[in-house]
Amino acid sequence: MSVNRRDYSDELVEGGFAIEVADAPLLHEGLNLADIAHVLVLHESGIAPDAAVAQLLGVLLDAQATPVGEFGYDPEYGETYNWRERRFTDAIGDAAGWLHAGRTRREAVRVALRLRLRRDVVDLIEAAARFVEAAAVLAAAHAETYMADQTYLQQAQPSTFGHYVLQFCYAVQRDVERLVADLAWINRSPGGVGCVNGSSLPYDRARIAELLGFDDVIEHTRDAMWQNDGLLTLVADAAGLVTTLAKLAEDLEIWSSKEFDYVELAEGHTRGSVMMPQKRNPYALSMVRGEAGVLIGRLTGLYAVAKTPSARSDNLIFAYGEVPRSTQLATKATRLMAGVVGGLRVNSVAMYRALETGYSQATDIAEFVMLAAEVDYRTAYDVVGATVRRAAREGVPGVAITGEMLDAAATEVRGRPLGLAGRDLTAVLDPATIVRTRATRGGAAPEVVRGMARECLAVAREAVAAAQARRAAFVAAEDRLLAAAAAGAGVDGHRRVPVES
Amino acid sequence: MSVNRRDYSDELVEGGFAIEVADAPLLHEGLNLADIAHVLVLHESGIAPDAAVAQLLGVLLDAQATPVGEFGYDPEYGETYNWRERRFTDAIGDAAGWLHAGRTRREAVRVALRLRLRRDVVDLIEAAARFVEAAAVLAAAHAETYMADQTYLQQAQPSTFGHYVLQFCYAVQRDVERLVADLAWINRSPGGVGCVNGSSLPYDRARIAELLGFDDVIEHTRDAMWQNDGLLTLVADAAGLVTTLAKLAEDLEIWSSKEFDYVELAEGHTRGSVMMPQKRNPYALSMVRGEAGVLIGRLTGLYAVAKTPSARSDNLIFAYGEVPRSTQLATKATRLMAGVVGGLRVNSVAMYRALETGYSQATDIAEFVMLAAEVDYRTAYDVVGATVRRAAREGVPGVAITGEMLDAAATEVRGRPLGLAGRDLTAVLDPATIVRTRATRGGAAPEVVRGMARECLAVAREAVAAAQARRAAFVAAEDRLLAAAAAGAGVDGHRRVPVES
Amino acid sequence: MSVNRRDYSDELVEGGFAIEVADAPLLHEGLNLADIAHVLVLHESGIAPDAAVAQLLGVLLDAQATPVGEFGYDPEYGETYNWRERRFTDAIGDAAGWLHAGRTRREAVRVALRLRLRRDVVDLIEAAARFVEAAAVLAAAHAETYMADQTYLQQAQPSTFGHYVLQFCYAVQRDVERLVADLAWINRSPGGVGCVNGSSLPYDRARIAELLGFDDVIEHTRDAMWQNDGLLTLVADAAGLVTTLAKLAEDLEIWSSKEFDYVELAEGHTRGSVMMPQKRNPYALSMVRGEAGVLIGRLTGLYAVAKTPSARSDNLIFAYGEVPRSTQLATKATRLMAGVVGGLRVNSVAMYRALETGYSQATDIAEFVMLAAEVDYRTAYDVVGATVRRAAREGVPGVAITGEMLDAAATEVRGRPLGLAGRDLTAVLDPATIVRTRATRGGAAPEVVRGMARECLAVAREAVAAAQARRAAFVAAEDRLLAAAAAGAGVDGHRRVPVES
Amino acid sequence: MSVNRRDYSDELVEGGFAIEVADAPLLHEGLNLADIAHVLVLHESGIAPDAAVAQLLGVLLDAQATPVGEFGYDPEYGETYNWRERRFTDAIGDAAGWLHAGRTRREAVRVALRLRLRRDVVDLIEAAARFVEAAAVLAAAHAETYMADQTYLQQAQPSTFGHYVLQFCYAVQRDVERLVADLAWINRSPGGVGCVNGSSLPYDRARIAELLGFDDVIEHTRDAMWQNDGLLTLVADAAGLVTTLAKLAEDLEIWSSKEFDYVELAEGHTRGSVMMPQKRNPYALSMVRGEAGVLIGRLTGLYAVAKTPSARSDNLIFAYGEVPRSTQLATKATRLMAGVVGGLRVNSVAMYRALETGYSQATDIAEFVMLAAEVDYRTAYDVVGATVRRAAREGVPGVAITGEMLDAAATEVRGRPLGLAGRDLTAVLDPATIVRTRATRGGAAPEVVRGMARECLAVAREAVAAAQARRAAFVAAEDRLLAAAAAGAGVDGHRRVPVES
Repeated sequence: MSVNRRDYSDELVEGGFAIEVADAPLLHEGLNLADIAHVLVLHESGIAPDAAVAQLLGVLLDAQATPVGEFGYDPEYGETYNWRERRFTDAIGDAAGWLHAGRTRREAVRVALRLRLRRDVVDLIEAAARFVEAAAVLAAAHAETYMADQTYLQQAQPSTFGHYVLQFCYAVQRDVERLVADLAWINRSPGGVGCVNGSSLPYDRARIAELLGFDDVIEHTRDAMWQNDGLLTLVADAAGLVTTLAKLAEDLEIWSSKEFDYVELAEGHTRGSVMMPQKRNPYALSMVRGEAGVLIGRLTGLYAVAKTPSARSDNLIFAYGEVPRSTQLATKATRLMAGVVGGLRVNSVAMYRALETGYSQATDIAEFVMLAAEVDYRTAYDVVGATVRRAAREGVPGVAITGEMLDAAATEVRGRPLGLAGRDLTAVLDPATIVRTRATRGGAAPEVVRGMARECLAVAREAVAAAQARRAAFVAAEDRLLAAAAAGAGVDGHRRVPVES
Repeated sequence: MSVNRRDYSDELVEGGFAIEVADAPLLHEGLNLADIAHVLVLHESGIAPDAAVAQLLGVLLDAQATPVGEFGYDPEYGETYNWRERRFTDAIGDAAGWLHAGRTRREAVRVALRLRLRRDVVDLIEAAARFVEAAAVLAAAHAETYMADQTYLQQAQPSTFGHYVLQFCYAVQRDVERLVADLAWINRSPGGVGCVNGSSLPYDRARIAELLGFDDVIEHTRDAMWQNDGLLTLVADAAGLVTTLAKLAEDLEIWSSKEFDYVELAEGHTRGSVMMPQKRNPYALSMVRGEAGVLIGRLTGLYAVAKTPSARSDNLIFAYGEVPRSTQLATKATRLMAGVVGGLRVNSVAMYRALETGYSQATDIAEFVMLAAEVDYRTAYDVVGATVRRAAREGVPGVAITGEMLDAAATEVRGRPLGLAGRDLTAVLDPATIVRTRATRGGAAPEVVRGMARECLAVAREAVAAAQARRAAFVAAEDRLLAAAAAGAGVDGHRRVPVES
Repeated sequence: MSVNRRDYSDELVEGGFAIEVADAPLLHEGLNLADIAHVLVLHESGIAPDAAVAQLLGVLLDAQATPVGEFGYDPEYGETYNWRERRFTDAIGDAAGWLHAGRTRREAVRVALRLRLRRDVVDLIEAAARFVEAAAVLAAAHAETYMADQTYLQQAQPSTFGHYVLQFCYAVQRDVERLVADLAWINRSPGGVGCVNGSSLPYDRARIAELLGFDDVIEHTRDAMWQNDGLLTLVADAAGLVTTLAKLAEDLEIWSSKEFDYVELAEGHTRGSVMMPQKRNPYALSMVRGEAGVLIGRLTGLYAVAKTPSARSDNLIFAYGEVPRSTQLATKATRLMAGVVGGLRVNSVAMYRALETGYSQATDIAEFVMLAAEVDYRTAYDVVGATVRRAAREGVPGVAITGEMLDAAATEVRGRPLGLAGRDLTAVLDPATIVRTRATRGGAAPEVVRGMARECLAVAREAVAAAQARRAAFVAAEDRLLAAAAAGAGVDGHRRVPVES
Repeated sequence: MSVNRRDYSDELVEGGFAIEVADAPLLHEGLNLADIAHVLVLHESGIAPDAAVAQLLGVLLDAQATPVGEFGYDPEYGETYNWRERRFTDAIGDAAGWLHAGRTRREAVRVALRLRLRRDVVDLIEAAARFVEAAAVLAAAHAETYMADQTYLQQAQPSTFGHYVLQFCYAVQRDVERLVADLAWINRSPGGVGCVNGSSLPYDRARIAELLGFDDVIEHTRDAMWQNDGLLTLVADAAGLVTTLAKLAEDLEIWSSKEFDYVELAEGHTRGSVMMPQKRNPYALSMVRGEAGVLIGRLTGLYAVAKTPSARSDNLIFAYGEVPRSTQLATKATRLMAGVVGGLRVNSVAMYRALETGYSQATDIAEFVMLAAEVDYRTAYDVVGATVRRAAREGVPGVAITGEMLDAAATEVRGRPLGLAGRDLTAVLDPATIVRTRATRGGAAPEVVRGMARECLAVAREAVAAAQARRAAFVAAEDRLLAAAAAGAGVDGHRRVPVES
């Protein structure tokens, strides 16, 4: 094995090892843990001798106590793993050579990647669930904040801001569930597979999984070493989540315009112009939208990387950095949108004014015409359409439409009135009354929205708690492992450095 | 509503409606069913009158009996739904106008898309499960077909072709599970949501779901209308599956070369050159690889389309065609690889020859040295490395390495022999013996491979049966719906046309 | 060579040939022309005998006169080329066998693809140049239609709609130039390369290029056969163009909202709701945005397909359909946006009202303060910022800000007035006056905008004329080729069928 | 403007500013230069006073002399530009406020991005041209190294390794030309555009362009500020280049296998296994392939980011880091492949052996049969096909095929011999003789290959020289700018820090 600088060309250092070493901050702690567990199993299996084991555990605990920035990873000597071997050999000589018994470089890094990712994914799950909490709270608070629902950004029908924002709870909660499934894929052990076909050594795959806090081993050993499907799925889900949040961000950006004036971001989510004194820009929303775009690219890149023959290193080498960074970026975007939602000021007056001055009750009027005059919907639609166009020309708002106007339009459109003159239209003109009729399952009626918001909040809180419990379990397992290492090394305890990312 | 040709510019017809109408073959039957169920619920709810309902059901059953190619969809008059309205109005006049009561165009098409997709996804699930079956059978048959496992296409360690191919069972089975989850997302009803906020009409959302054979309604009505996350996930999973199959295809393409000569495709999966008389090309493999690339693009495109504000039609308009076509393409690729696997001829002689002439037992020798001489693995590795390089120079194959050679190398590398002269190395030289030691969980030992293959086969068979049961349930629900329509229309029965794709 | 159905498995027909045959409408005419030119060169080179040549030209002219839908392409017998061989052999027996002399299947299809694409790219160039024309005309007409330029959709500074829309002329004109470069790549001949390394036959590469109207041959024969870089570039440029147009579409969608009310699409670019009588949706804009997303996916897919070893058929097989369809989709989107721009109604009153009621002159005031009071810009900015915030609180619009207000703010912010009381601020308050000061190169001053619009219009007209000239030259070359074929076949003339797409 | 930490939420710092600040190493020097040129023009235009200008130039030269890592960029205070303002204000108080006169934050960063990118693109151009040099040299050296050209990895026809490798010269040279066009887009000045519509200040756009060494200004001011089409094109070209190189890498990886044994990488481009003593892996090739995949993702991400309304900051914010990093990654991959090509060992013996033992001369035999027996090519193909199949069964290599065997096959296939018994077939059997017949333009004949290689080498050398000249001109312009700043600041000279990336 090459550990001498002179073996490698400059272009390989730059175009190969340096790219891998750039990921060392993401993998350093995981590599320490992976190495420690490996040494412990080698010892328990009777493969590695006591003295070498104690020495190895000692240098590994030292590594664990050393921040990655001080560990000296240097691509001139190969990638991350090579540097570690070099350091360990410098420190304890041949005893370091036991580390390589029964295990490939890639097994070590695969384990490290999963240890890194399980933390990152738990963070993302918690961030997503907290977004759901924030959005559910906002929705409940605005169950009676009336606004026109829009398609193509054209006013459609009276609804509420609460009903609007609640939809994002459902969408993001589905992503929470997807991410929980992704975590199940991640938290399984690829350890103890020898080259890829298993080992002849008496190495216990279940034991290594247990030491590292994995839920189980990955069954098939070649699959264990080379599977990357769960990484693709994870990044697809992370990108999907942020793409959903970007929809909300886009809506809020438009509604933050002076012309709409529906919402205003908290100052802590905006920034001023350096040139234009009057401007505060909804910078947070722009960042989330851009982050969605970046994640779509990361997703694509990962799929494109995966399009190779089987058992090609690039499949995973380029995942080591891309996948944790993508997951972390998604977490940042999600926290940012949770903050935005939590800090949002909603201008219910402006929202209501748009309802008052428009014609979003046209569908309700048409349905009234259909039922009252017993005509088919297309006929009712044509009558109301003519009514509305005339009202708009004459400056009559939707709330002031009368039965007489409908009859006049019916005469124009269908050649006869429909007997609507004098009818009380209040129930189909007033936005709040209209919204109260949306009491169907999942509809916009205030009590329905409040009920759904309660339900979403409860589900989200459970998800937060579950994420926290998983994180605690990972920490506990890793602490136990480090304690075992300290015992094996004959030292009193261990010191953790903060996980860097 | 515009149904007159003259209303639309030529460029809108070409750049808008024609693009939507190109998807009519995918949606026609689903639209018929969606419309029928809608009319039945309008009737049951007392909204639409008997006579109009009977007329509408009549023309809808006619539509259902008319192949899409004869239905005349014409973008000059708008998109698919517009054309249908036009035809129905031509046939039954104002009675057709009841169809639009309480429902948007997009609700109709959303329902149709899900009816289309649930069939397509079941097909893909079955195809994937059948691939697992075929690969498991092949794996079991080759549990003792010895070959060198490879990384970077360099010989690594002795393994078997059975162990190699079995990994694809596990990977694809995970995709089967993902697709089953996708199907659960798809088979829920977005029906009965009014505009998007619910309806004031007494329209039963649960009833429309039941009539269409959906598992449940989608709770939140705006979410119901606009959610597209499950479509992204579906295409991500389809693309992931084919990317995995493309790995197998790439491997087989390389191994089909004259230089490797490990495998040969059945003639029915190859094609000849029109110029070169000696050539038969593994065309199937090339197609699968290209299909993976195409699907990666479809996935990206769908995410890019989804990056918009909320409630923008393009989100779904471009999914109507892209998602079913992507799913169907994945099914074709999967069936093709299942066929390739089922028809593959494996040249165990060539595989074994590569083992005999190489040095893939070097790791086993090094582990033997480590344990026998009680040296660390790095030392053992260096000794065996020197041994192998010398053997290669002198033309000695790996199987002929001796303890004397190891001692000579140890002297060279470490300054002393390791006492290995005269030791019997058979157990670490013979490929078959080596493979038998890989008896760890998931390893390459023949009995382990056979056990896993049995397990995979059983799981795959269950998945096939479950997919078939779901398909049958969909057909049954749709048949019941058509029977109800026929009863409502006063006709004796209904005629189905084959689903076109 | 296999032309018998029974040779191919069902899954290969479905997952292979059927996918290729679906592209036959795009390639049929090009294949006819490619085959004709090949036969003529075989004849001129003395390779193929007179009688066979006449027979072959006869059946090829027949094919050319047969619409692709009637030609019977059937994937059961292989891909497009196989079917042609079968038809020709059925018609003229062994004489058809000369067609394969010195040429691979892929050479024939590569030529056909380029013949197809050069037409498609010329169409796209013309469409893009016509968009530039339409936008330049609109810009000139609105050189004095004042509006607030926006960033983050927040009002920034006074500008004009003309200046806004003119930027798209420059962006799209750059795409025109890129597409012209792409066309130069496309219109070179890959013909006459034998397998890929040249041919031993006396086949004149320059002659085949001349007959087909290509500008030159592609030099290196293996490159000629396998190059696909220009296809990636073409789709990147097409996707880039439509992504640029989608920006305009997004802006117009927002400005079409009732709340902005800046613009209104011509009725021929909108469509009504089928449920909501009051709604007309800017459907055209939604389609263009979605088409941008789809094209981004097509681009990605093509790159992902290209990530293979060299000389793998999938590289081009999947380009045959994807690249022309992507180009055509871009053309449709471009024509649609040209139509939208041409038909747009601009509401200058609403645009001006937004200027009047906002504070977009704040920068100009601050620059005035800087120069008049000889303070640094940050100080001036702070003073104006305080002024504007106070004005907003007090309901004073930007146009009514006074020197006294500035001094008051200066006292508050900096502890002293700046001597601005009593100064005439008209020049930095009135939007039209402000815009007239933007007379720098490329600025928003009306005369600058009109000058740029004239220049853009002239450049676009030249581009349209050049595109038309290239199209005419392609048609003329193909007509000459068909005339030569008719002469060789001993028939009187030839009949063209319309190019299908 | 906010420069106080307390203004921003934690989630905005993490999800916004920290992401921007991570790009500071790419932009720091460019920002210094942009700021200096801006201050000089403010001074020349009489806007900013002498004393403030001298102070500003002083702190800017300090910044330029300070490595980015020591400059303290801290996202707690906003993005990169905010931090600079804070530092300058701390140092020189209000005088720092002149920096913001007439210029937005984004203008500063747009300029900095272009200064960064023009260096990066020149590096990539030079790297690509040097690859062409290396490949042309390799091609010329192997103009008579015979090998079977392959499609689908199946042996096709005799060719040479020189002809094979030469195709990459042509492909990469086209990318060089594309990148030169990209550089023309990049090296134009967006400076002096005020907000985006020009400025009322007497600010000379041409002067700022000249000071910064740009070729010209970008005409339209809003386009100048927001254009990103050239960035998309640049990344598309970079990704296309590496995708092309990945094809070569894939081929070489396959040919490096023990089974092919055609080529061997220099040791400096491989790395050993840490577990398997016998293995050296072609690591460089795997990295290049992965880098192609990553770049495809970067490209996609950039397009997805660009799919927004116009004038949205995310369009460029996410380009600041992604585009230089993508360009640099492409440069690394290109240098690596140039190194691989330069160090490659070619095993001409193994290549020739494959020719000798196969049937790649079958096409030449068939063409001989066609011409000699005056039969159509399909008939000749069938006869040779039957001959080859029989030869393969009987173990007769292609070089030993006789006229008698052809006649026997003809009798079998067509019912009669073709009079070929006794004919001398040497010219169509011997690979070297066959290759010499490929003397057509661009063909594989050795003298043709040597001629093309000479031509490619000359073109590449010119491209290298041109890239170097451009780089020198950029350095000279920046040096002149710094000298002017030093003069203006009253200091003796300036100190450059190395550009970081």
